[in-house]
Amino acid sequence: DLLARLSRAEGQLRGLQRMIGANAYCIDVLQQISAVRRALDRLALILVQDHLKTCVTDAIRHKNSDERIKELIDALDRFLA
Amino acid sequence: DLLARLSRAEGQLRGLQRMIGANAYCIDVLQQISAVRRALDRLALILVQDHLKTCVTDAIRHKNSDERIKELIDALDRFLA
Amino acid sequence: DLLARLSRAEGQLRGLQRMIGANAYCIDVLQQISAVRRALDRLALILVQDHLKTCVTDAIRHKNSDERIKELIDALDRFLA
Amino acid sequence: DLLARLSRAEGQLRGLQRMIGANAYCIDVLQQISAVRRALDRLALILVQDHLKTCVTDAIRHKNSDERIKELIDALDRFLA
Repeated sequence: DLLARLSRAEGQLRGLQRMIGANAYCIDVLQQISAVRRALDRLALILVQDHLKTCVTDAIRHKNSDERIKELIDALDRFLA
Repeated sequence: DLLARLSRAEGQLRGLQRMIGANAYCIDVLQQISAVRRALDRLALILVQDHLKTCVTDAIRHKNSDERIKELIDALDRFLA
Repeated sequence: DLLARLSRAEGQLRGLQRMIGANAYCIDVLQQISAVRRALDRLALILVQDHLKTCVTDAIRHKNSDERIKELIDALDRFLA
Repeated sequence: DLLARLSRAEGQLRGLQRMIGANAYCIDVLQQISAVRRALDRLALILVQDHLKTCVTDAIRHKNSDERIKELIDALDRFLA
């Protein structure tokens, strides 16, 4: 699923290249960039979900989750920043 | 800590009101809005961290975490959107 | 209009304070933070629109707009970052 | 410049594909997604700058800029949303 989403994002990026190469109207290019950005956001959230269900869940079961949670929050902070 | 951060954000918002009331230069007002937005982002991440350490941790211990994790991912999705 | 939107945002922030004070469910608090963030985004865009219609328009008429445009782009960059 | 930035973003995206294919640690993948997202944001801002210096400047000189400005603000709104 992740790799399928990623190739879709790559396709969108190539669409962007064609638009810029063809001197498409700036507002239309912006809209396409918004679409790629949104696709990456969803990809990131799927990753976070997987991470919670695997690594974080394991860490919690081993009562060893503080560092894992801190690390995830820091990654989300860099993502938002 | 959350409430302290929140009153700071409220102070920033009142600063914003004064700036707009005093017809401050648009770019300076924008910068102040960026600061409030950033403060809210950090507040949100502290909340997510607390949530992971309490509700999600409990749910994982009770092998009942899928819904909790889905709910958090949906909330993050609305946050990013 | 700006000041009306700003007091609405302030009201939302006070709602947030009440929610946190009352120990509201984390996901509901997150949703309220998303709402304030979105309100600030719209406020910022109204400011940018006003700025384009006044300062930037004036600068363009006086053939003196490069610095103004650069300054706005930098402000948007800090906003996104 | 735009096309060079775009191929760099495409390279980053392929890096992402390799990381996911190689089962890289989720937090590292997230960081790479943040980098692509940031690259797209900068690309979008360069486009907005070009747009202000060309289309919007022309429209202002022809006293015909309200629609152009509205259109740009709407595009930025979709970008932030």
